[in-house]
Amino acid sequence: VIVNTDYARFLLLAREIRDLGAAGALLAWDQEVLLPPKGLAARARHRAALAGVVHEKMCAPGYGELVDGLASAGGLDNHAGVGGQAGHAATAVREAKRDRDRAVKIPHALVTELAEAVSLSQQAWQAARARDDWPAFAPHLARLVALKRREAAAVGHEGEPYNALLDEFEPGARVETLAPLLSGLAAEIVPLIAAIGEARARAGDDPGALLRGDFDVVRQEQFSREVLVGMGFDLAAGRLDVSAHPFTSGTGPGDVRLTTRYDPCDLRVGLYATIHEGGHGLYEQGIPAEFEGTPLGDCASLGIHESQSRLWENFVGRSRAFWEHWTPRARELFPERLGRATPETLHRAVNEVRPSLIRIEADEVTYNLHIALRLELERALLAGEIETADLPALWNARLQATLGLTPATNREGVLQDIHWACGLFGYFPTYTLGNLYAAQLREAAAAALGDLDALIARGDTTPLLAWLRARVHARGRLLSADALCREVTGRELETAPFVRYLQGKFGALYGV
Amino acid sequence: VIVNTDYARFLLLAREIRDLGAAGALLAWDQEVLLPPKGLAARARHRAALAGVVHEKMCAPGYGELVDGLASAGGLDNHAGVGGQAGHAATAVREAKRDRDRAVKIPHALVTELAEAVSLSQQAWQAARARDDWPAFAPHLARLVALKRREAAAVGHEGEPYNALLDEFEPGARVETLAPLLSGLAAEIVPLIAAIGEARARAGDDPGALLRGDFDVVRQEQFSREVLVGMGFDLAAGRLDVSAHPFTSGTGPGDVRLTTRYDPCDLRVGLYATIHEGGHGLYEQGIPAEFEGTPLGDCASLGIHESQSRLWENFVGRSRAFWEHWTPRARELFPERLGRATPETLHRAVNEVRPSLIRIEADEVTYNLHIALRLELERALLAGEIETADLPALWNARLQATLGLTPATNREGVLQDIHWACGLFGYFPTYTLGNLYAAQLREAAAAALGDLDALIARGDTTPLLAWLRARVHARGRLLSADALCREVTGRELETAPFVRYLQGKFGALYGV
Repeated sequence: VIVNTDYARFLLLAREIRDLGAAGALLAWDQEVLLPPKGLAARARHRAALAGVVHEKMCAPGYGELVDGLASAGGLDNHAGVGGQAGHAATAVREAKRDRDRAVKIPHALVTELAEAVSLSQQAWQAARARDDWPAFAPHLARLVALKRREAAAVGHEGEPYNALLDEFEPGARVETLAPLLSGLAAEIVPLIAAIGEARARAGDDPGALLRGDFDVVRQEQFSREVLVGMGFDLAAGRLDVSAHPFTSGTGPGDVRLTTRYDPCDLRVGLYATIHEGGHGLYEQGIPAEFEGTPLGDCASLGIHESQSRLWENFVGRSRAFWEHWTPRARELFPERLGRATPETLHRAVNEVRPSLIRIEADEVTYNLHIALRLELERALLAGEIETADLPALWNARLQATLGLTPATNREGVLQDIHWACGLFGYFPTYTLGNLYAAQLREAAAAALGDLDALIARGDTTPLLAWLRARVHARGRLLSADALCREVTGRELETAPFVRYLQGKFGALYGV
Repeated sequence: VIVNTDYARFLLLAREIRDLGAAGALLAWDQEVLLPPKGLAARARHRAALAGVVHEKMCAPGYGELVDGLASAGGLDNHAGVGGQAGHAATAVREAKRDRDRAVKIPHALVTELAEAVSLSQQAWQAARARDDWPAFAPHLARLVALKRREAAAVGHEGEPYNALLDEFEPGARVETLAPLLSGLAAEIVPLIAAIGEARARAGDDPGALLRGDFDVVRQEQFSREVLVGMGFDLAAGRLDVSAHPFTSGTGPGDVRLTTRYDPCDLRVGLYATIHEGGHGLYEQGIPAEFEGTPLGDCASLGIHESQSRLWENFVGRSRAFWEHWTPRARELFPERLGRATPETLHRAVNEVRPSLIRIEADEVTYNLHIALRLELERALLAGEIETADLPALWNARLQATLGLTPATNREGVLQDIHWACGLFGYFPTYTLGNLYAAQLREAAAAALGDLDALIARGDTTPLLAWLRARVHARGRLLSADALCREVTGRELETAPFVRYLQGKFGALYGV
């Protein structure tokens, strides 16, 4: 009975913390999508105040005693708990304790200082990127790196300070394991890129030209919405808006907000941003309603989150089967540009492999090299081996070494991504983890469902979504990323499925 | 020195409370404008959690000791304080104490219960109004009335319980004074309505027909934005969006959010909603930046707030001079409907006096009778003299007695306004106060600026806005509504200026 009462009180307090966090998420979303420019400074303060309150509630002694008491009492294993399943209650307490133990180590002043610095730095980044003005952004970044180093020191870490930050996004991951995984992957990818480069030079054609040119933005939006609904995204429980940098946010499974960005001269930019964020959005909408407002109403990790977006974007959206289904509609919406397009030509157009400057526009083969570059730089920043002032030169040198390209402007180089401006260090590697998890999940889904391409070509991704819902989305935060991967795919995370996928797909496309 | 330090600490804590309040305002705005329907239930929780935190912070003993200590120390009179003006610091403390003294009387559970009930009831109201389903809304309203009666009892009051609620919107006002003011006004208006009715019957024409018909909504929005910018509203510090019920909200003077509602068959609905909310928005944008986040960064009262919206909507927007300036643009935007319109015909079209069912579409003459009806009903509800179940019948009977009309549906009757669904009892009378303050301010502005109509006809409302900024907006919450009225107009609030205005304008228009 005592456990029951304490558990009920714990759920109320945990829910309050998550509810206030959801309010903060709305303020952040609104800042990117709607906020008038003159409201930015005050918004930074509002977000800092909310972050402060969330931290206060998390650190409140009463909540701590409840969480620690329930965690050590151990009487929860047979308690029905969240969602009415045995074991869920114990997991909810364990995850809440994990969050709280991290939070109490961070000084309150650092939390609000970081929240305000992030909000101001996001604003500075937008202006600096628009004007290609690195010096205007550099002091903000330096301040954020200093604050994040203080956070890492406060949280504590085995191995490098980087691990303290990585752990927030990918619980349990360590950079000492992750970096070799990424280098190993790079070693397998680099020869493939070279072979494709040669094949492309021999062919001398430009398949992507089909989707560059004039594409009416209103019709692009229409197409994006149709594809999104086709994937199973529920627009009565979510929105699709426009922002400078596409992202997924929201305040719960009934309010999942995707943003995209339409390029009036390239159909691929908006469409694939929508499908990518749509994959994230399906995960968020699939988290069980009974987990909402509890510590279980969350993703397993950002790597798992990214596996959902990359799975839909690449394995579904960039498949030949996708265009078997969608070519007629694309021809209807864009008769002048695509009147004679075929699934074959569209498939080739969306799978151009070509080293490029911008990560979010990179093809599937070169994409992870962009991530490896960012991981290397932020790891060195956090370890204090380099300074933010060194970043532009190092960025350009590393990109030249990896992809043979040097950006003409910082706007296309070190200023391209919003992440560092948001204080998100330790986040980028989750993108590559996402690609790897996605490939491994895809093999498992294919083993379970049979010919995925046949389903996709019929426009029927319902079985795929149902499989993902049951195996991934419905678990919320019950399982760690590792455990989920083992349970669903039967194996630890490996690079092999992803490399197999790349070699199969691009080998066929380029005849290499 | 001690006063200085305590005052600085007080400002920080007061700012935190206001910042969290601003976050709550964004959640409320978003709910009306953007929120997907399946997110409503969770949003109610998020808003309740925020309201709870604001109340907690307000009631925290440390804050109370600071506020009470500073208020009784009295050493602040010569302290530069907020905005660098002597006396501001003492006023900031006085107003903070006023807010706090009210807040601590309300039990915490009642605050969060009310916030959640309001959010759910708003949702129920929207659905009920759409389907004309009074029984679906009635239990929500009954719950809110019960909660507000508990609030009134907790806050305490001289005279009727109604005063405890009125005081939140119109500090210091009392229903025992207000009700006779409204009846007195009605006594003067009723003969004017009768005379106009006879004149209208004799003339037998329909001047409003000019603005009924097909008006493209995209062009209506364009027109609304141009008029808004012409008034001096800064779209870099605000937004104009669409919602079911037009309102003004936002999170500070750099982020002022107006909503409007376009009727594809009547140009007046959207245009005058925009000008009305634009008047509110100018007030909000005119509150000094150095008051933001302090107890002074607020309006004097809702009556004063409404005076700004009604002044722009009616005295500017429905003047003949307004159409002298805007007719050419209106003809350009709507050539088919308005190609032959003149300032004269447009002026007549927007000043049709005709008893009507819907308050927000009522003309200036009959408008305050709608308010008197609502005041009477909510006063009786709060006093426990009637039940919510009696409302539809009472509403219809009173409307028949006052305006000679009976609504065919509750949608056009008791369900038309959002206010009661938001728990806003004691709010409606501020609309009539707004009309009265506006007329008195208008006479003062005309005395100071000379021929206002000549300026409006040139499209130059800058001097008017500058006058309002200096006399009203820039004072924030330094003066009470009473004191502001006396200082700016040299007199107590009276009905005479408004009655003079109505008789002058409509006497001329209708020849009565």
